[in-house]
Amino acid sequence: MPDHPYYSQALHGPFETYALGNFLLEDGSTLRDCMLAYAIFGELSAARDNAILVTTWFSGTSKIMEQAYIGAGRALDPSKYFIIVVNQIGNGLSTSPHNVPAPFGGPNFPHVGVPDDVIAQRRLLTERFGIDRLALVTGASMGAQQTYEWAVRFPDMVARAAPIAGTARTTAHCKLFAQALMDALTSDPGWAGGWYETQAAMRQGLHMHARLWALMGANPSMYSQELWRGLGFSSVEDFVLGLLDASFLPLDANSLLVQGRKWQHADVARPYGGDLAAALGRIKARTCVMPVSTDMFFTVADCAAEQRLVPTSQLCVLETAWGHLGVMGMDRAYLAQVDAALMALLAAD
Amino acid sequence: MPDHPYYSQALHGPFETYALGNFLLEDGSTLRDCMLAYAIFGELSAARDNAILVTTWFSGTSKIMEQAYIGAGRALDPSKYFIIVVNQIGNGLSTSPHNVPAPFGGPNFPHVGVPDDVIAQRRLLTERFGIDRLALVTGASMGAQQTYEWAVRFPDMVARAAPIAGTARTTAHCKLFAQALMDALTSDPGWAGGWYETQAAMRQGLHMHARLWALMGANPSMYSQELWRGLGFSSVEDFVLGLLDASFLPLDANSLLVQGRKWQHADVARPYGGDLAAALGRIKARTCVMPVSTDMFFTVADCAAEQRLVPTSQLCVLETAWGHLGVMGMDRAYLAQVDAALMALLAAD
Repeated sequence: MPDHPYYSQALHGPFETYALGNFLLEDGSTLRDCMLAYAIFGELSAARDNAILVTTWFSGTSKIMEQAYIGAGRALDPSKYFIIVVNQIGNGLSTSPHNVPAPFGGPNFPHVGVPDDVIAQRRLLTERFGIDRLALVTGASMGAQQTYEWAVRFPDMVARAAPIAGTARTTAHCKLFAQALMDALTSDPGWAGGWYETQAAMRQGLHMHARLWALMGANPSMYSQELWRGLGFSSVEDFVLGLLDASFLPLDANSLLVQGRKWQHADVARPYGGDLAAALGRIKARTCVMPVSTDMFFTVADCAAEQRLVPTSQLCVLETAWGHLGVMGMDRAYLAQVDAALMALLAAD
Repeated sequence: MPDHPYYSQALHGPFETYALGNFLLEDGSTLRDCMLAYAIFGELSAARDNAILVTTWFSGTSKIMEQAYIGAGRALDPSKYFIIVVNQIGNGLSTSPHNVPAPFGGPNFPHVGVPDDVIAQRRLLTERFGIDRLALVTGASMGAQQTYEWAVRFPDMVARAAPIAGTARTTAHCKLFAQALMDALTSDPGWAGGWYETQAAMRQGLHMHARLWALMGANPSMYSQELWRGLGFSSVEDFVLGLLDASFLPLDANSLLVQGRKWQHADVARPYGGDLAAALGRIKARTCVMPVSTDMFFTVADCAAEQRLVPTSQLCVLETAWGHLGVMGMDRAYLAQVDAALMALLAAD
């Protein structure tokens, strides 16, 4: 991937790749030379029964999941589990608009759905590692969408599921947020239908996109309490520049759009005629649904409504004033709650 | 105002105007031929003690305040009170970027602050009507900002104050929202530094602006409960088109920017060295602080924190799932709560 310096082993590695060849998507289009980038931690047991799959969120890569959620003494402990963190298609490390050959890249990149990711991930797990059952699938935000899709689509492969700060079907309000993020990008005068030639050409759109995350990602109470001070920032603007702009400005706009559309259209019930209860009723995994208490777009109420439709499930609200951005792990109390919930889930039969 | 068909007597009247001449703003700039547009209801008593001032919100005019809040049997009853609804400067009816002579209009329109509005409104009340004390000042959103400014700046003129869904000092998070709204407009390729020549040239920016209101104006729970059905809409998109786009697309972008900057910089404490407690401590009005329970940017917590600094005050949370947009009055239960609270406030000595 020499054509976009951000999506590099230097910044996000070490990661490995698995080639799936030409990959047929659910909508009938083909993803040429599909490749999944993934990072592994720990060792697969001889019985192949200690595998945990960790999925990635919008704009995130395996690196942030490693940094925030994996470690000795944590729930996701590499000394106990074989942990595979898989980058979602389009996130910049796995096959994405900037790293496929012309004319298939840029805005010609196909519309990928969450099911496409899960089907590709299943091939990685079975073909590469011989894993046919996962001790746990977990991920936050769009990672929760993949977690739900796994548990619904392949119920016999998922022993436990922990969707964090995300839903199985994107709500109407959440769709409006995803659309606003995409509109911020495509409204850039430099957008050129997705054929922008440089990163700088998209500066305005990426700036607006980052600022929408500052607005909707964090809860108003975080700003009222000035919790950004705890991260070493000196003012709100310093925080927004130093966390949001710093995180989002280097990203590829077409990559964000692939993920944004995927997020917007996520719906585990699509194969079941839109019957969400029927879809979620298929889940055999012991499931811990973990919304963030102050989330502005994957709200506790919306997550709880789905949890009630999952047979063997419980709701575990993660208390933090950080809102959705809390999934990044800046609040240690949040991480302690995640670890406690995941440890209890992993300890259960 | 022949140059912008939206801001007309036909759509927003009947309203009257009061000329203030060249009006010196707090920042030292001059607003040429400043004029306030206002609507009156009821009759001023001989003792001039039954006057109620109603202020307007971002993008709103006196018409929506009349339609939603004033009527026989309501708290704001023209048979009992002399009600003056005053359009804020820049809202399109009062002096605004589109209706001042060149070269003072468009993006050259000065930066108006909430105190400028209140000082101008005071001149209208005293010079035109001989009113030196108001039975009540009330308004929602930016109207609450004006209400607070009135009660702090002229404490002896305000017997009662009812700021609805707004704060005395704009919070950091709320500033981010105002900035996003403004960025949506100024990012339009047709913006041309504010010298767009037609309404159509600003379509994309006005569209994004409207969609941000769909996202942040209404609470996620409104969408989950599909309360838009109660307004006669058939789908979320139908609702967003029919309420948000319909409301915002006809507006003048420069007008919205004047109001957006004013909103962003609202702070009753500025003359008091930023000491909010000192500023709010000046209030002599019996005050009922009325946040909307599900407001996403003028949150209950932020409103309650200010209420605790107002000497003779109480908090009255208005319960509705509509979020901030609830101030438009589509929820009858919301309006009933407003009327009950205002009636109690008006009945108190």
